[in-house]
Amino acid sequence: MIFSSSLLENAVNEFAKLPGIGKKTALRLVLHLIKQKENEVAFFSETIATMRKEIKFCKRCYNISDNHLCNICSNIMRKQDIICVVESIRDVIAIESTQQFNGTYHVLGGIISPLDGIGPEQLNIESLVKRVSEEKTQEIIFALNPNIQGDTTIYYIGRKLKETSVKITTIARGIAFGGELEYADEMTLAKSISNRIPVEHYINANS
Amino acid sequence: MIFSSSLLENAVNEFAKLPGIGKKTALRLVLHLIKQKENEVAFFSETIATMRKEIKFCKRCYNISDNHLCNICSNIMRKQDIICVVESIRDVIAIESTQQFNGTYHVLGGIISPLDGIGPEQLNIESLVKRVSEEKTQEIIFALNPNIQGDTTIYYIGRKLKETSVKITTIARGIAFGGELEYADEMTLAKSISNRIPVEHYINANS
Repeated sequence: MIFSSSLLENAVNEFAKLPGIGKKTALRLVLHLIKQKENEVAFFSETIATMRKEIKFCKRCYNISDNHLCNICSNIMRKQDIICVVESIRDVIAIESTQQFNGTYHVLGGIISPLDGIGPEQLNIESLVKRVSEEKTQEIIFALNPNIQGDTTIYYIGRKLKETSVKITTIARGIAFGGELEYADEMTLAKSISNRIPVEHYINANS
Repeated sequence: MIFSSSLLENAVNEFAKLPGIGKKTALRLVLHLIKQKENEVAFFSETIATMRKEIKFCKRCYNISDNHLCNICSNIMRKQDIICVVESIRDVIAIESTQQFNGTYHVLGGIISPLDGIGPEQLNIESLVKRVSEEKTQEIIFALNPNIQGDTTIYYIGRKLKETSVKITTIARGIAFGGELEYADEMTLAKSISNRIPVEHYINANS
């Protein structure tokens, strides 16, 4: 693509760095912004920069937060002794959107996947184990994608928590194998939380 | 979608205002930016804001420009007495990318379309007519999309220029390279037969 303006070219190149945005889509977005009012585009750009600058991760659950403690962890109306273990922030948003879960979260920041070089030490697992023993957590609910990596992660963390008295459950397999948690419809996701089953049942059922 | 952070929510909402970007895609883009370094995101955001603030439209051809005269209009190596008339800036980029055209452009900013409420007075037509008579333009090439609106626009401008001695042409309409004859629509096929060209012209043009 040949541009007659370096300002345009730079803006297109910046947009094209985003995942799933090619040069043509980037150009379409930039030409859209050119048509908008200057203060609107300034607001867009400032919102993004401020977000990146000020965003924090909750010290306790590693969820995205405006403060050092996210508003789920600091909400006394929520059951602080129930932890839902998820892979990523996207899963927190997906589960929160069902409005069916009233506990807290723990974001692992990934899933055990030796093929991708991701081991337990790269994930927020140690802090979860520490949190369970320190906070006397009643129940842990695993809400991980239903695949080999998810099962490995459940098995690994389950073993780490064997000494504790915490009840360990996993969301019901209402979600098809190979499906992605974040794309599941809210009803299926909500049901799979309310129908959660103890991990020993789950392991027995799948072996 | 329920967010635990207002910073995140604001950023997602801003991205979701862009054309073709839904809430889920916006979230994916924002989570990608969160993973990037702070200065990289600041650069992204500044590039967009600067672009919108400083971008200009060429006074002569209405192309996007860094200055009051775009670098095509100010390039003495280009044939300033040939004007290619296009609908939008995107078409300028498309034609420039072929590296086959050495004249200048005139961006109409749209196309005559009464059904969409777009009449000649909303387009850069008056300035084109003025430009042709003032600059003693040799040739105008219409490079408009081949549809009723494009033909109407060509007809309207053609009439406006009847008094001048400018040569008026339009880009060839016909079967696309790599296109299958049997899948071409009847209109295109019919036009390509009635507008047939001598083989010696065709061979010369392609060698």
